[in-house]
Amino acid sequence: MTKTVRLITIAVCGPSEATPNEWVAAEQTGRLLAEHGCIVACGGLGGVMQAVCKGAKKAGGTTIGIIPSYEKSSANPWVDHVICTGIGQARNAVLVATGDAVIAIAGGFGTLSEIGLALKIGRPVVLLPGGDLTLFDEAAVDRLRTLGGTIEVSNSPEGAVEQALALVKNRSISKYLNFGS
Amino acid sequence: MTKTVRLITIAVCGPSEATPNEWVAAEQTGRLLAEHGCIVACGGLGGVMQAVCKGAKKAGGTTIGIIPSYEKSSANPWVDHVICTGIGQARNAVLVATGDAVIAIAGGFGTLSEIGLALKIGRPVVLLPGGDLTLFDEAAVDRLRTLGGTIEVSNSPEGAVEQALALVKNRSISKYLNFGS
Amino acid sequence: MTKTVRLITIAVCGPSEATPNEWVAAEQTGRLLAEHGCIVACGGLGGVMQAVCKGAKKAGGTTIGIIPSYEKSSANPWVDHVICTGIGQARNAVLVATGDAVIAIAGGFGTLSEIGLALKIGRPVVLLPGGDLTLFDEAAVDRLRTLGGTIEVSNSPEGAVEQALALVKNRSISKYLNFGS
Amino acid sequence: MTKTVRLITIAVCGPSEATPNEWVAAEQTGRLLAEHGCIVACGGLGGVMQAVCKGAKKAGGTTIGIIPSYEKSSANPWVDHVICTGIGQARNAVLVATGDAVIAIAGGFGTLSEIGLALKIGRPVVLLPGGDLTLFDEAAVDRLRTLGGTIEVSNSPEGAVEQALALVKNRSISKYLNFGS
Repeated sequence: MTKTVRLITIAVCGPSEATPNEWVAAEQTGRLLAEHGCIVACGGLGGVMQAVCKGAKKAGGTTIGIIPSYEKSSANPWVDHVICTGIGQARNAVLVATGDAVIAIAGGFGTLSEIGLALKIGRPVVLLPGGDLTLFDEAAVDRLRTLGGTIEVSNSPEGAVEQALALVKNRSISKYLNFGS
Repeated sequence: MTKTVRLITIAVCGPSEATPNEWVAAEQTGRLLAEHGCIVACGGLGGVMQAVCKGAKKAGGTTIGIIPSYEKSSANPWVDHVICTGIGQARNAVLVATGDAVIAIAGGFGTLSEIGLALKIGRPVVLLPGGDLTLFDEAAVDRLRTLGGTIEVSNSPEGAVEQALALVKNRSISKYLNFGS
Repeated sequence: MTKTVRLITIAVCGPSEATPNEWVAAEQTGRLLAEHGCIVACGGLGGVMQAVCKGAKKAGGTTIGIIPSYEKSSANPWVDHVICTGIGQARNAVLVATGDAVIAIAGGFGTLSEIGLALKIGRPVVLLPGGDLTLFDEAAVDRLRTLGGTIEVSNSPEGAVEQALALVKNRSISKYLNFGS
Repeated sequence: MTKTVRLITIAVCGPSEATPNEWVAAEQTGRLLAEHGCIVACGGLGGVMQAVCKGAKKAGGTTIGIIPSYEKSSANPWVDHVICTGIGQARNAVLVATGDAVIAIAGGFGTLSEIGLALKIGRPVVLLPGGDLTLFDEAAVDRLRTLGGTIEVSNSPEGAVEQALALVKNRSISKYLNFGS
């Protein structure tokens, strides 16, 4: 009897309101992740979170929504597994830690915190600046790298998904080479 | 295009070390839950948590492990979806909130806390005292009910699973009758 | 320049509604802790939590309220330092971990969870069953000890405070003897 | 008998390693806050966190350290009240929520997350870029304001403390005018 085959999980972060462009980018990201056999984890609510779940489900994927409250009904209807944390905005740390890598789409305050938490915990991050607001310019990304963060910038959902998967793969290989596990 | 059909999730609590009897009870509980089409959520580590996941996977089910650390590798090999909370023992609150109902097998300190947290948050609880240590006698269970808790005691995995599903169903019906949702 | 002299902190757990007897017991507990030079930590809300803070403040003590929400104004008016966790019932773990020892007065579901969490994390517990509802009889307390928990039962605030302080002292001595710190 | 007079609490965020310049800025910030009668809350560990506590204690202030683990001994020796959260990096949300306003000194990944969490939760933020690494240029700060964040930049501890206190005062006044409380 074989044990479970654990699939790669990508945490996708983004605000609960999405511009049309951000919605399209998020839905496409979800679809691509599902097509690559990845589990999609997100914050479980609306906007970018809903779009990425919808995209993943349309492609036959599996979605996890890590919500801030105890109210399962507050999750968007494309979430398969609702994790009712009840820990408010601190759930952002749970979301990024649950991903083997993190894709941050557009970005509000919550997404900003998730980028910081992901880098702190040691999860690689891919930025997909989807809208008009870009918090990090090239210089800021360079500074995050100087501090030891693994962070990439992409300008398309295809690129973001490819980079995220490459980062997970590299990390697994380096783990294998260095630590024998 | 239809949205996701969200399955019932049962949170199964139990210590990270299991006596042979507890192991059998936990594995059987996991198997029965999977056969009833439920998702099994647990604390993701060893002992009762591992047994319930193994039972569920052997029956083709899906398992969620809500672990205390950021280390995905600390989850037992029968967990499909590892939620890396990083919030230590506070993750017990996340586990019980994620269940539509909670089954508590045997019990150590963590399980004791999960019973209290589940009742506090409003999740129904079924006790399945699997081993030699029984924290709650009939009088104590009655007192918990006096305080407003929904709590049942079962003496077999079959009974525990049936009771848990009945509690979820009753709750859904009362919700439907009262709130139209 | 000397560093800070850190005082002993006792976490006092209890429900947000108190019977007159429980209120008196809690207020007296707070007063005695302050008179012994201890910091009083609690859940910060009403009932037993408010009474213990009021007792401590009347005796010139210092109080810490570790509340579940982000709303500082929800703390009772006898809390000096409001810790706005925003993590809901998971804050119970933060409360007991913050205490060098834990006194549990009366008890509802939250208090039950706090007893379990304290024992899990390794904090000694003193039960002060203040009202009509007693969750743990002598046999249950013995079972908790069998599992390795440090737990005492007292029938007065004076006794509870003395036992809590003795447990902290013993722990510090055993730490000193074993680990040199 | 009067209730407690709750003092303003300022959360000071910063990395666990500090350059000499950052150390000086942090210690001075702590001293100024204490001189203004504020409670200083921080993450409780080394570097900027230790410096700000030391500064506050030297000026006779009170310090709260909200640490990620259950190990009280991991707090720096200038922390009066150690809050042992045990919730890892998620404690960053607890720290910023506990402040009436937030001062972020220099900045690593954790500080970045704290800025995002503070703005998300609705706490005003003052940046005090103490070292060579500046994550947010003027344009980025403007974008955070466009998203609704209350955020200021200062170039000295004196300025940062003044701005933080002004933001708390304004918030209290606007609360009074708008909500009658």
